Amino acid sequence: MSLLPLQLHLTLPPWISEVADTSRRYHTDEERVGLAIELSQRNITLGTGGPFGAAVFDEHGRLIAAAANRVIPQTCSVAHAEMLAYMLAQQRLASFRLNAQGTRYTLATSAQPCCQCYGATVWAGIDELLIGARSEDVEALTEFDEGPLPNDWIGELQRRGIAVRRDILRDRARAVLAEYGAAGQSY
Amino acid sequence: MSLLPLQLHLTLPPWISEVADTSRRYHTDEERVGLAIELSQRNITLGTGGPFGAAVFDEHGRLIAAAANRVIPQTCSVAHAEMLAYMLAQQRLASFRLNAQGTRYTLATSAQPCCQCYGATVWAGIDELLIGARSEDVEALTEFDEGPLPNDWIGELQRRGIAVRRDILRDRARAVLAEYGAAGQSY
Repeated sequence: MSLLPLQLHLTLPPWISEVADTSRRYHTDEERVGLAIELSQRNITLGTGGPFGAAVFDEHGRLIAAAANRVIPQTCSVAHAEMLAYMLAQQRLASFRLNAQGTRYTLATSAQPCCQCYGATVWAGIDELLIGARSEDVEALTEFDEGPLPNDWIGELQRRGIAVRRDILRDRARAVLAEYGAAGQSY
Repeated sequence: MSLLPLQLHLTLPPWISEVADTSRRYHTDEERVGLAIELSQRNITLGTGGPFGAAVFDEHGRLIAAAANRVIPQTCSVAHAEMLAYMLAQQRLASFRLNAQGTRYTLATSAQPCCQCYGATVWAGIDELLIGARSEDVEALTEFDEGPLPNDWIGELQRRGIAVRRDILRDRARAVLAEYGAAGQSY
């Protein structure tokens, strides 16, 4: 008889529901990345994970899913904010490709996706990727490595129908990373 | 009040426990990739997901986790075999980096990791990546795209301490992909 685990259970902390407001619309890039940054800030303030947040919106600005980094609390290297946001949004829409029915979706993230989240972005079914801090900000301000990417990582996404806009509220996103890095935190 | 989902539950089919034998040791590359291929075969035969399997072993050949592709059954683009194997192994060891305590770990996969699983491999904490079919086999025999990788994808892993060996039982791995592709299956 096998003792192999066959189930995975990943959770987000309950405060996500206080920060993410489903009663409003998030219309602008700044509103969307602003939420991702707020998630990253709250996550380190409350000690529930690393300094990263992400959220998925539909084309009407409705919030579909919101997440924060959970790598250490869940002992799971996959549990980056973007990965969780994709999985939660796909579960909610019951679709393994978010835009399969023609509605357009956006991922907003507090910092440039690492190599894992970059690859996941190719399959998730989004039409737009909105980024706060750059990869070099993450690596300069914290101990995190962003991993190897294709040289033309933006072009590779664009050729697959995913527009990329970055440096959205970059200074605010950098401030969260700087706070985390200065505290020498490692969760 | 927010209606956002805050929980994710991913499952593997119960037959995994019949194929994956925790009472034996898997010592050779062929035994390890052989299990991954068997998982991929059984997954399409039983209709529980796509034609991909993966397993994590420790340095003594003990099986830590086994998984198969679950993208369509779980409506989750993250639920590739390699991703699930990493998450299950990390959960079992209660470590977000498998080799954090010095024991060496291996991932065996029926086919070359796509861009998402490639990125996840950088963070998972493995020391060896064993591959059956090549990316070009996947793209020639099925409808699947493997996504953009760094030009020197093997070198980038090696520089991070992850040895890569491929073409292990490649013909057997190709046969499963060919069966899947010929049937025009899309799960």
